[in-house]
Amino acid sequence: MNDTIRQLIQELGPEVILTGIDISEKYHADSSGETAHAPVAVARPASTEQVSSILRTCSSANQKIVVQGGLTGLCGGATPREEEIALSLERLNGIEELDRESMTMTVLAGTPLQAIQEAAEDAGFLFPLDLGARGSCNIGGNIATNAGGNEVIRFGMTRNLILGLEVVLADGTVITSLNKMLKNNAGYDLKHLFIGTEGTLGIVTRAVLRLFVEPESRSTALVALASFDGVIRFLHFMSREFSGSLSSFEVMWDSYYDYIIEHVPAVSSPFAERYPIYVLTEISDKSGQSVLENSLADELEAGRIVDAVICKSERERQAVWAIRDGVGDAMAVIRDNANFDVSVPINKMADFLAQLEPEIKAILPDTALLVFGHIGDGNLHLVFTVNRKEDKKTVYDVVYKLVGAYNGSVSAEHGIGIQKRSYLHQSRSNEEIALMKLLKQVMDPKDILNPGRVVG
Amino acid sequence: MNDTIRQLIQELGPEVILTGIDISEKYHADSSGETAHAPVAVARPASTEQVSSILRTCSSANQKIVVQGGLTGLCGGATPREEEIALSLERLNGIEELDRESMTMTVLAGTPLQAIQEAAEDAGFLFPLDLGARGSCNIGGNIATNAGGNEVIRFGMTRNLILGLEVVLADGTVITSLNKMLKNNAGYDLKHLFIGTEGTLGIVTRAVLRLFVEPESRSTALVALASFDGVIRFLHFMSREFSGSLSSFEVMWDSYYDYIIEHVPAVSSPFAERYPIYVLTEISDKSGQSVLENSLADELEAGRIVDAVICKSERERQAVWAIRDGVGDAMAVIRDNANFDVSVPINKMADFLAQLEPEIKAILPDTALLVFGHIGDGNLHLVFTVNRKEDKKTVYDVVYKLVGAYNGSVSAEHGIGIQKRSYLHQSRSNEEIALMKLLKQVMDPKDILNPGRVVG
Repeated sequence: MNDTIRQLIQELGPEVILTGIDISEKYHADSSGETAHAPVAVARPASTEQVSSILRTCSSANQKIVVQGGLTGLCGGATPREEEIALSLERLNGIEELDRESMTMTVLAGTPLQAIQEAAEDAGFLFPLDLGARGSCNIGGNIATNAGGNEVIRFGMTRNLILGLEVVLADGTVITSLNKMLKNNAGYDLKHLFIGTEGTLGIVTRAVLRLFVEPESRSTALVALASFDGVIRFLHFMSREFSGSLSSFEVMWDSYYDYIIEHVPAVSSPFAERYPIYVLTEISDKSGQSVLENSLADELEAGRIVDAVICKSERERQAVWAIRDGVGDAMAVIRDNANFDVSVPINKMADFLAQLEPEIKAILPDTALLVFGHIGDGNLHLVFTVNRKEDKKTVYDVVYKLVGAYNGSVSAEHGIGIQKRSYLHQSRSNEEIALMKLLKQVMDPKDILNPGRVVG
Repeated sequence: MNDTIRQLIQELGPEVILTGIDISEKYHADSSGETAHAPVAVARPASTEQVSSILRTCSSANQKIVVQGGLTGLCGGATPREEEIALSLERLNGIEELDRESMTMTVLAGTPLQAIQEAAEDAGFLFPLDLGARGSCNIGGNIATNAGGNEVIRFGMTRNLILGLEVVLADGTVITSLNKMLKNNAGYDLKHLFIGTEGTLGIVTRAVLRLFVEPESRSTALVALASFDGVIRFLHFMSREFSGSLSSFEVMWDSYYDYIIEHVPAVSSPFAERYPIYVLTEISDKSGQSVLENSLADELEAGRIVDAVICKSERERQAVWAIRDGVGDAMAVIRDNANFDVSVPINKMADFLAQLEPEIKAILPDTALLVFGHIGDGNLHLVFTVNRKEDKKTVYDVVYKLVGAYNGSVSAEHGIGIQKRSYLHQSRSNEEIALMKLLKQVMDPKDILNPGRVVG
C-alpha cells in the first residue's frame, strides 16, 4: 500500500477506500475484453465533496485514477491499468428532483439509466436515451461517452439531453453548472468539455436531464426493401410523413438478418421470404397505427417497399426488436469476431460497403460480414467473423483505414477508450488531436484522470 | 498606420485590407447601441487561408481583432474598440454543397441566414434556425452566439443544428472538423469550444449544417388564457398532443400584447376582448389544421383556454406573428427602454415576475413593463420603458440580481459581448468563470480575438 492510499484511508475511512481482498473482481475490468487488472485501491465516494477530496489528494500525489460507472463500456476506458486507483461512482446513486414544470430531472452520476427511465415514466414523462445496457450502465458513463442508442434520429445523442452538470476537476475544484433552462448563453457552455470526453477532463457527479412528454403510443413496423438506395428514399419518405415523431430507423442487411434468424434461438422472421435489406422503424405519437398502415400500404402499392409487417401488440413489437437486439446473443455464438461501431456519411455508405467486403475477403476469404445500423444517423455496426484471433488486427487496420478514406468516424457511439486510440488519426487531423491534447494538458496537467485514454 | 497594418497590406493587398477613408461607417458598430468606433483597419478575407494568414500576422504583432459578421448582435461584441482591426467575414459568403442523402449543407461563415433558409427550401428541406434578423445576420455570427429563435422548442439552439466546423485559431492554425454525421464520438467534440463563445476562442470560417425534411404544412393558432399556470398546463397539453411537431410556443402577457396592439401601426388583435395572457403556437406536420382545431375545441369546452383563433391563410398567420414580432417597431416608439433577454426556470417564472414588477416600481414608479417570451425554453423577454437614460442602469442592476437569485440566465439568446460582462457573475460561479478564463488564456494567449468580450 502506497502513502497516497494510506492518506486517503485516513481522510475518508475504510468504507470509502477499499484495498487488498476487499476489492472484488468486478472492479478489474469493463466490458471491452481488455485484460483485467486489479486497481491498487477502490474509492467509493458517497458525495461530491468526497470526490473532490479524493482528487485533491491524488492530484498532490500524482496518483493516477480510472473512473468507473456501470462498467459496460466497450473500449477499455474503465479497465484499470498499472498502479491506478479505481474511483467508482456506484454510491453516488439517486434521483434528487423531478421538476414537472421545467420538465427536468436532477440525478447523481452513479444512477442506473433504467432507474431514470422508470422514474420519468412513473411521472408521465419520457427520458429518451435507451441502449441495450440500460439495466447496468450509469448516467455518468452515458454522459462521459455521449451515448447514442435507439432514438438518436429523433432526440439526439446524450449531449442533447443534458441541460446542466456538476463536475469535479482534476485538482478537486467543483464546477457547478446545474442549469435547467433550454436557452442559456451566459458565457461559455462548459458542460461540453465533459460530455463525450470519457472522464479525461473531469468527473461528472450530478446532471440535470431534459425530460419529454411521454408519447401516447408507439407504432412499429418491419419493412423489407430491394436495395440500399431504396432505404435512403424510404428514410426521407418516413421523415416527411412523420416529421418529428419518427423515433427509430434501424437498418439490417440480409447478411445480418439471415445470420440472426439462423443462429439466435427464439428469434424468427415474420416474413415468409427473405429480402436484400430490412428496416425496423418506429413512430411515437398519438396518431397510432392506422396512419402508419396507410403510409406503408401506399409504398407497397407503388413498389417502393417490397414487404411489411406492422406490430399489432407489444409482444409482436418485442419479437421484431429481438431481431435487431439479437446481436448480443450472436456475439456469444460467433467464437471470434471483430466488431465495429463506425459512422460513414450516408451518401457514401453504399460505396464504402461495396469496397469494404472485397478488400477484407481478399485477405481473409473465410470471413463473414454482418451489417446493421442506425442509418438515419450515419451509424454502421459491422461484425466480422474471424477464425483466428490474430486476424482481428488485420480487420481493424483495413476497416479503420477505409473509414478514414470515406471521412467517416472510427467511433460513432462507443468512444475511443484504450482500444481505438491508435486509430483516432484516421478520423481526426493532427491539428485536431493537438488541440485535444492541449485541453487535456491544461485541465489535467498531472495526467491523473483516466490517463492513456482517448488522447492520453 | 501601424507596422502590422502595413505588413497585412503587403501580404494580402489593399483589396483585402481597407484603411482610412475606405473604411465605411458600417464597420463602426453592431446593433447594440454601444458607442461606434472606427477600426484601425478592416480585413476582408476571401478564403480560410487569408483568415489564417491575417491571424498569424496579428498574433505575432499582438494586434487586437474584432470579428464582424452581419453586425446584428445586441451586446456590443462586434463594435470595434480602441486600436482594433475589424475582421469581416462578408466575403466568405456562399453555399458550397447541399448533400440530399446526408441532409447536410456546407456553407461559408459569411453567408446570410436567409440565403441558407431559401437554398434549403428550394431543395425541399428545412433549415429551422429563424430569427428576426434573418435577412442580415450571417451563419458565422449565429454560430458564434449560439443563436436561438422561434423554433428552439422543437429543433434546439444553433448548437444542435451544427454538425461540423472549420475554425481558425488565434495563432492561425486551421482546425478542420467538417463532420457530416449525427453520431461521431471519435475524440473530443471540439466544435463546442467555438459555438456560443462569441469569437473569443477562434474564428469560424465554414460549417456543416443539419437539414430537416420540410414539413408538409404549418398550423398556427393564437390562444388566450386566464393565467400563467394555465399556460404551463397548455404547454404540456400541446407537447403531449403534438409531440415532436410542436414548433413554436410564444407567450405574451397582457402588458406586452396591449402595448403592441395600441402602439404599433398595422397590428390588430383578432379577438373582440382582451385577456390576461396569450400563446402563439405553431404545429409543423402533415396532419394539418383539423387536428389542431379539434384539440383546441376540447380545451375551450373544458374551460382550460378562454379563446382561440386558428389561422386560415398565410395572410392570417403573418398577422398573428406580427403581434409577436411587433417588438422591433415598439422599440422605435418607446424612446428609452431597458430590454432583457433572460431565462428563468419555468417553475419559478411566475414568482420571478411577481417579485420583479413591484421591486422596479418601488424605485421607478412610472415604468411600464412588457413581458413576452419563448416559454417552453425558459426564455423571457422583458422591456421596461424608462423616462431617463440614467435609470437604465438601475433597472439592469435590479433585474440581473433577481435573475441570479432565481438561478436564471442573464442571457438566454443574445450572448454577453461587452454589455453584460459585469453581470455574468449573477449567472455563473467564480469557479465557472475561472475555467472560462483558463480556456481563453490557453487558446488565445495574446488576447487578440475579441478582447474584453464575454470573460476578457
